[in-house]
Amino acid sequence: MKKKNKKVNAGILVIGNEILSGRTQDKNTAFISSWLNSKCGISVNEVRIVPDIEKTIVKNVLELSKRFNYVFTTGGIGPTHDDITAQSISKAFKVKYEYNKEAFKILENYYGKSKFNDGRRKMAKMPRGSKLIYNPSSAAPGFIIKNVLSLPGVPSILNSMIENTKRYLIKGLKTHSKTLNLFTVESNISKQLGYIQKKYKKFVDIGSYPFFRLGKIGVSIVSRSTSKIKLNKVNQDLIELARIKKIRTLKI
Amino acid sequence: MKKKNKKVNAGILVIGNEILSGRTQDKNTAFISSWLNSKCGISVNEVRIVPDIEKTIVKNVLELSKRFNYVFTTGGIGPTHDDITAQSISKAFKVKYEYNKEAFKILENYYGKSKFNDGRRKMAKMPRGSKLIYNPSSAAPGFIIKNVLSLPGVPSILNSMIENTKRYLIKGLKTHSKTLNLFTVESNISKQLGYIQKKYKKFVDIGSYPFFRLGKIGVSIVSRSTSKIKLNKVNQDLIELARIKKIRTLKI
Repeated sequence: MKKKNKKVNAGILVIGNEILSGRTQDKNTAFISSWLNSKCGISVNEVRIVPDIEKTIVKNVLELSKRFNYVFTTGGIGPTHDDITAQSISKAFKVKYEYNKEAFKILENYYGKSKFNDGRRKMAKMPRGSKLIYNPSSAAPGFIIKNVLSLPGVPSILNSMIENTKRYLIKGLKTHSKTLNLFTVESNISKQLGYIQKKYKKFVDIGSYPFFRLGKIGVSIVSRSTSKIKLNKVNQDLIELARIKKIRTLKI
Repeated sequence: MKKKNKKVNAGILVIGNEILSGRTQDKNTAFISSWLNSKCGISVNEVRIVPDIEKTIVKNVLELSKRFNYVFTTGGIGPTHDDITAQSISKAFKVKYEYNKEAFKILENYYGKSKFNDGRRKMAKMPRGSKLIYNPSSAAPGFIIKNVLSLPGVPSILNSMIENTKRYLIKGLKTHSKTLNLFTVESNISKQLGYIQKKYKKFVDIGSYPFFRLGKIGVSIVSRSTSKIKLNKVNQDLIELARIKKIRTLKI
């Protein structure tokens, strides 16, 4: 992975009727976003969840791949008829959808020649020119073509593969974050919080998230910035605000 | 709620840096989708997760509101500086962002005049012409303008408000679903499953989702259709497939 001192961003395209219908709760977005930021300094700027419809996938892959440095797709690379991610990305980039020799060998070796049936062979078909993202849990690899990286939808398998995407990514500036819990309600601090946000406008994003936990009401103030120095300054201002307002705080 | 015998769809726009960064796992999408389908016969066709940036929200509200019958936004309607959903939607529809009299009264009444400060007043500001979505948990109402319904991001509050969106929605054809668990692997049935999907192409969507639970490997076959009769036919075909292949099944 190369290093670069600039912002690098990504979009995520979650592909699957089961997520849209509400049957399955998407867990991959939070995992990929956290991993990309902490390990690669890449910020996820948009996520889209779309159904298993070829023209929809084609359109969204093209849109997101133009707008972001990287696009991660999840889902739709298994052996069944509703797994159409690889063929859709081939269409999007106008390249052949064909057997990848290396993927074919990996899968043939994993299943054994006699059990390497049509369904399993399908998982070796990819856009021409793809490079593989190795899968240490269940062999079937993901792939990268241009700036689009395709991973499976099953979270445990995706999680085991994520480190293998690293070699294809340019490293960006990591966004650091600090959280300060204030035991008050948002409206008690919203005005002053607005002033602090204005003061550090270009450097720090301050988010305010109410919580109700263990019978206590409070607000988590989450500050995010590529500059640790600026983050510390915001934190000092927040602690001063709490002191003036006599609000109990908890650093987490 | 009026009845209509046609397909009605919706998009969801999740607004919030905390979801994009991976800090918070979005739970609202699955809840809204399930509720919309089961209670209103409305299918969610696309979800987008975007940051707290006005021009991004404006662009996405306009795009989704053109493409779908309804758009549900979640998040960004609280009292702090990062809550910019109402002002962004006002910009999108080129209407004034102003106090809604009814919302103002509800909030003033809830907090009491002396504690009704600027932060709390902000929650009464909405796009001109909005109608309210009442909030039985914490008073601050959501709103609807044109075909866009705005709800808060905190799941427990959103869940308590969802029934109050019903009066604004046209009812569509409900998508029914049937799940059959097959104790086999996907590649053992992918070919035949493809044939069955082809046979019912226009009427039923068949999804295949591997599971690993309690030490057992299997595939959940989820069929979805607005026609219960067609669903039953697909199910018969699936059970016949399992019989021929000697696969144990479990209806769920």
